[in-house]
Amino acid sequence: MPLVNIKLIPDGITAQQKAKVIAGVTKVMEKVLKKNPAQTIVIIEEVPAENWGAGGEQVTAIRQKAAK
Amino acid sequence: MPLVNIKLIPDGITAQQKAKVIAGVTKVMEKVLKKNPAQTIVIIEEVPAENWGAGGEQVTAIRQKAAK
Amino acid sequence: MPLVNIKLIPDGITAQQKAKVIAGVTKVMEKVLKKNPAQTIVIIEEVPAENWGAGGEQVTAIRQKAAK
Amino acid sequence: MPLVNIKLIPDGITAQQKAKVIAGVTKVMEKVLKKNPAQTIVIIEEVPAENWGAGGEQVTAIRQKAAK
Amino acid sequence: MPLVNIKLIPDGITAQQKAKVIAGVTKVMEKVLKKNPAQTIVIIEEVPAENWGAGGEQVTAIRQKAAK
Amino acid sequence: MPLVNIKLIPDGITAQQKAKVIAGVTKVMEKVLKKNPAQTIVIIEEVPAENWGAGGEQVTAIRQKAAK
Repeated sequence: MPLVNIKLIPDGITAQQKAKVIAGVTKVMEKVLKKNPAQTIVIIEEVPAENWGAGGEQVTAIRQKAAK
Repeated sequence: MPLVNIKLIPDGITAQQKAKVIAGVTKVMEKVLKKNPAQTIVIIEEVPAENWGAGGEQVTAIRQKAAK
Repeated sequence: MPLVNIKLIPDGITAQQKAKVIAGVTKVMEKVLKKNPAQTIVIIEEVPAENWGAGGEQVTAIRQKAAK
Repeated sequence: MPLVNIKLIPDGITAQQKAKVIAGVTKVMEKVLKKNPAQTIVIIEEVPAENWGAGGEQVTAIRQKAAK
Repeated sequence: MPLVNIKLIPDGITAQQKAKVIAGVTKVMEKVLKKNPAQTIVIIEEVPAENWGAGGEQVTAIRQKAAK
Repeated sequence: MPLVNIKLIPDGITAQQKAKVIAGVTKVMEKVLKKNPAQTIVIIEEVPAENWGAGGEQVTAIRQKAAK
């Protein structure tokens, strides 16, 4: 009964992509760990780019620099 | 000083229900573990049904099938 | 299908107390939110006092001062 | 740059299985969401059966009943 | 490669304050733990006051009482 | 009342370094967000290198390659 929590910056992720992520990750748990898929829970948490930092900088700032 | 994090699909949860969840869970910590209620923190995180998967499927899809 | 994550400093918590916490919290979800208990997951994470900080201090240090 | 957190009851999971979980989940993120695999982080957290509850019961208790 | 997750009640937090939190926390990791800042991830999660409980009460209720 | 959760590979982190991380992060919250330090909680979770993946690979494997 694994619980999988995925945090990501949404960047236009669609409902269909979410469905594929849920299906794909559940399959990995089943194939590698023999976990019953009925008991795997997957949660996707969408975090705004402004709230995500890498290398000490907001992703919004990193992207603005990259776009220049 | 327990920290309790509750993730759920909101399904119309009201402010009053949230208050009761916070009070109820804090009381469990006090009664079972003798934890000072003043130091128990409870956080409720609301996750859209589209972002929640069980059995490899989005809850939105599970519910659509169940409604048929 | 709520997911409840409880982080606490173990302080000698027993298996039986864990069982009571799980039962108690699941009952709160059922009573307040009408959530099917079969689908409530509760996870207890034990954090050493040395790894827990409050008020800018390690709990180990806070307790040493309190014991003096 | 998704962050994936997987909580599970270890049940004898090997280092090699962990490697396969990490590789498999990272591939799902790349394939479905076009996320650069270099920026995907996967963390596996092992939770003792005694600390995991489902349906209001400890998994240790559920398994003991099932074994009878 | 530390992952830092900060949950807080937003209370009017600005994008600039978020940037300073990210920079400041990343610097602590570098200075104290010699962690490469390029590999530190910081995520800020904003939780409504209604969903946050302390001492068995919603923060919204605590604040209403304090304001009286 | 921010809650800060830090996950890291321990790599010989000492109790004193943990104390400095807790103090430093709490100070950032106070300085940038004017949060009362008495209400800031910091939790450090130590994750074995074998359970941490980046770029689709276990950190143990990444380090073995780097050491060659």
